[in-house]
Amino acid sequence: MIETGLFYIISYLFPSRGEPWPKKSRPAKSTTQWYIDIVLNAKLADYSPVKGCMVIRPRGYAIWERIRDEFDRRFKETGHQNAYFPLLIPMSFLQKEAEHVKGFAPELAVVTHGGGEELEEPYCIRPTSETIIWAKYKDWIQSWRDLPLLINQWSNVLRWEKRTRLFLRTSEFLWQEGHTAHETEKEAVEETLRMIEVYRDVVERYLCVPVVVGVKSDTEKFAGAVNTYTIEAMMQDKKALQAGTSHFLGQNFAKAFDVKFQTREGSLDYVWATSWGVSTRLVGAVIMTHSDDKGLVLPPTLAPEEVVIVPIYKNDNKVAVLAYAEKTLAALKAAGIRALLDADDSSSPGWKFAEWEMRGTPVRIEIGPRDMASEKLVMVRRDTGEKSFVAAADAASAARKLLDGIQTSLYERAVAFRDANTVKAGSNKELMDFFGAEGKGTADAHGGFAEALWCGSAECEAGLKAKVKATLRCLPLGHQEGVDGSCALCGAPAKHRAIFARNY
Amino acid sequence: MIETGLFYIISYLFPSRGEPWPKKSRPAKSTTQWYIDIVLNAKLADYSPVKGCMVIRPRGYAIWERIRDEFDRRFKETGHQNAYFPLLIPMSFLQKEAEHVKGFAPELAVVTHGGGEELEEPYCIRPTSETIIWAKYKDWIQSWRDLPLLINQWSNVLRWEKRTRLFLRTSEFLWQEGHTAHETEKEAVEETLRMIEVYRDVVERYLCVPVVVGVKSDTEKFAGAVNTYTIEAMMQDKKALQAGTSHFLGQNFAKAFDVKFQTREGSLDYVWATSWGVSTRLVGAVIMTHSDDKGLVLPPTLAPEEVVIVPIYKNDNKVAVLAYAEKTLAALKAAGIRALLDADDSSSPGWKFAEWEMRGTPVRIEIGPRDMASEKLVMVRRDTGEKSFVAAADAASAARKLLDGIQTSLYERAVAFRDANTVKAGSNKELMDFFGAEGKGTADAHGGFAEALWCGSAECEAGLKAKVKATLRCLPLGHQEGVDGSCALCGAPAKHRAIFARNY
Repeated sequence: MIETGLFYIISYLFPSRGEPWPKKSRPAKSTTQWYIDIVLNAKLADYSPVKGCMVIRPRGYAIWERIRDEFDRRFKETGHQNAYFPLLIPMSFLQKEAEHVKGFAPELAVVTHGGGEELEEPYCIRPTSETIIWAKYKDWIQSWRDLPLLINQWSNVLRWEKRTRLFLRTSEFLWQEGHTAHETEKEAVEETLRMIEVYRDVVERYLCVPVVVGVKSDTEKFAGAVNTYTIEAMMQDKKALQAGTSHFLGQNFAKAFDVKFQTREGSLDYVWATSWGVSTRLVGAVIMTHSDDKGLVLPPTLAPEEVVIVPIYKNDNKVAVLAYAEKTLAALKAAGIRALLDADDSSSPGWKFAEWEMRGTPVRIEIGPRDMASEKLVMVRRDTGEKSFVAAADAASAARKLLDGIQTSLYERAVAFRDANTVKAGSNKELMDFFGAEGKGTADAHGGFAEALWCGSAECEAGLKAKVKATLRCLPLGHQEGVDGSCALCGAPAKHRAIFARNY
Repeated sequence: MIETGLFYIISYLFPSRGEPWPKKSRPAKSTTQWYIDIVLNAKLADYSPVKGCMVIRPRGYAIWERIRDEFDRRFKETGHQNAYFPLLIPMSFLQKEAEHVKGFAPELAVVTHGGGEELEEPYCIRPTSETIIWAKYKDWIQSWRDLPLLINQWSNVLRWEKRTRLFLRTSEFLWQEGHTAHETEKEAVEETLRMIEVYRDVVERYLCVPVVVGVKSDTEKFAGAVNTYTIEAMMQDKKALQAGTSHFLGQNFAKAFDVKFQTREGSLDYVWATSWGVSTRLVGAVIMTHSDDKGLVLPPTLAPEEVVIVPIYKNDNKVAVLAYAEKTLAALKAAGIRALLDADDSSSPGWKFAEWEMRGTPVRIEIGPRDMASEKLVMVRRDTGEKSFVAAADAASAARKLLDGIQTSLYERAVAFRDANTVKAGSNKELMDFFGAEGKGTADAHGGFAEALWCGSAECEAGLKAKVKATLRCLPLGHQEGVDGSCALCGAPAKHRAIFARNY
């Protein structure tokens, strides 16, 4: 470890202080390994002895709690209430909706024994809860007066996955699933769009992750849905991540579970439905979008601590420096800033700088005897490394300004990255060039979002997927007007503008 | 339904307004049925198509959210962090702690198939998470510097139950489980006691449910614990409800999972452990402790709405009365009171009175044209039915005072009920008389808490259980000094003071 006094001098001479360790070189390892290292080193999550399942460690869970609480607030604001339905679903329920069972059957975990006996009918662990919830809605909905029914559930779900990655794809994950029932098709479509807009707004503004909002192709939509709306984000390896989906289910589940209601006119009709969900995958999206070679980068909204204060002292000025740091801490807290003082004597300031950078704390305040003497302190932005000298009296307002700046700039940086890696592809050749030749398709150097005209055929989708592993991410909303030209894949007349990308 | 105008007159003439319906007579039905009716009518929970599992409806879940948030705040205040471990546990893990597997094996749900294939090793759904968590702690704990490790998890667990009751005993339930690791036995014991005290404090002060704090007998303790501390509450049918437990696990799980750490002295030692949990059962405890024949009674702390305003008007004064009610609502909200205005035109005020009483809202405000004219309003306490006339300008302060009074008085009423149904039994005959003759033992007329001296033998416990179905609930803390006398059950020299009761 570096001797504190010496480090203190060096760090004032060189602006790169805080990086006394060899900078990890991203090109030297794959984005995959870079991502895994951040998750493990920042103690966000860990592997578990259960196939495909992870342990969410306290720091990862604290980030999830902040994401969850913000969504929960927004769901309640839009009139939804939380409830809780059973973990287990009778296998026969899943079979009531033909498309639904086809989509989920290969991913099920099946409970065959309970209480020491073999069960008459096996249960599956919920992969999603439409079927168990609609079985109950049948009891709760009789008349238009019972509608709309606007329920959300926070829960764990399980989908047996072959290839998993911490946060981004795990067999068990935590999520919320909204399940709503409506009198009319119009109302249900409005709800579907309302919730994808809530998702967009929270993911863009709170998580600083820009997304494309669009509708899925029939190939990619939710099993049992009429339409699936999605928000698609671009990760740092230029792959797409489906960050949230909102499904218009039509009357499919009402018909499968025979949920009819008496209309205002006195007739009987099937109920119209939606469902929508986001999951702990969003923690992965945040990590993958903002982090750098020093480790995690967090938007201030999500950081367990927005500011960390690292005091720099020797034995003879320790008491004074710590008192000065405590005073700064109190001023930050009084201003409502989540701040922390790292007064641990067993590590050097330099070690702490690197440690808090790895953990993603948005702003670091350094306080040493010189700062104290001049009634100043040093603030360092985690995202840019930019350093500023601030009068101690202005600590709270300066920190708030810096934090707000980071929140804006993380988003803008991610938008710029996405835009720089998005092309309009007019031909098959352009698509092939963009995604890289066969076999090289997974290199970070290639790929991103390709916007191309599409004829609407599932064959064209499948063809591209087979060649370069790119899938149709969505038909972006607001970009479907005046489609005039031919499908980039087959040359037939185009029906839609589509985004193609490799994806998680 | 009752004509609004007529009802308005009648209700001013007779103080019993708000009860135009025949009062449900408790003696006419069992406490069990009374309890179930409240849960279903107040829409707190519902049965599900999954054996032994319930659906928690929005109102029940909102109460659980308030309980959960208060505990969560207290856990964080005492230095704990939340994390999340997998739902599934390899069967072999459970077998590593001999007592643990013996206790839980009969209650397991077993997953034998996943992703369309039979699993090499089956998983069980967690009945509690000690084993999966301690398997991970082995990776995380190397040195005394890693200790204490203070982790809590909010999750669902599943224990196959034969006889279930909404909230009070269900196969799947929601809970929190704290799992901590310590350097010394002393620290672990202190943690065990700290958490049972947090439980006592929240359950008594926030839920208004008085409890006896004590330690379990070997027969009744947690499978794998050295000691189990418990809080025991008395329900309205005089049965005991185990409302929360905190276990001192010694080094049992550290030995089972080989979790050793380097001590401050440089030697290797097994880690000391605790675990502790409360569950959605607490919602059942609240319902069962406070409710009456009109329905649910809620402590203000737990009520989704502390105050409901019911306006009483005719067509010609509707606009004015509603404006007056809105003004009152705004005043209450400005004072931080969770208040609601029930302006639904499709129900009469009388119907609303009964409805909100059934739902358990602590305070009802009635506002009619006469109240408006005299710049007053009427406040009615849910717990006592007591009615007071309050100047409109004082609405918020009067409501706050009333709510505080209800919070105190619900607790005191429950203490009085428990004390009135607690006896000191000195002999076998006194115990038999108290719990009722064999076969009549389940009648509400009998039973309660019997405090008796006990020799410490499991045979005496088993004997009483066989005769009158009463179990040893706990050895109350602070009541074990100067035990001098003979066991009420066998006459041998006594070692402890014990509480016996029938239980859920």
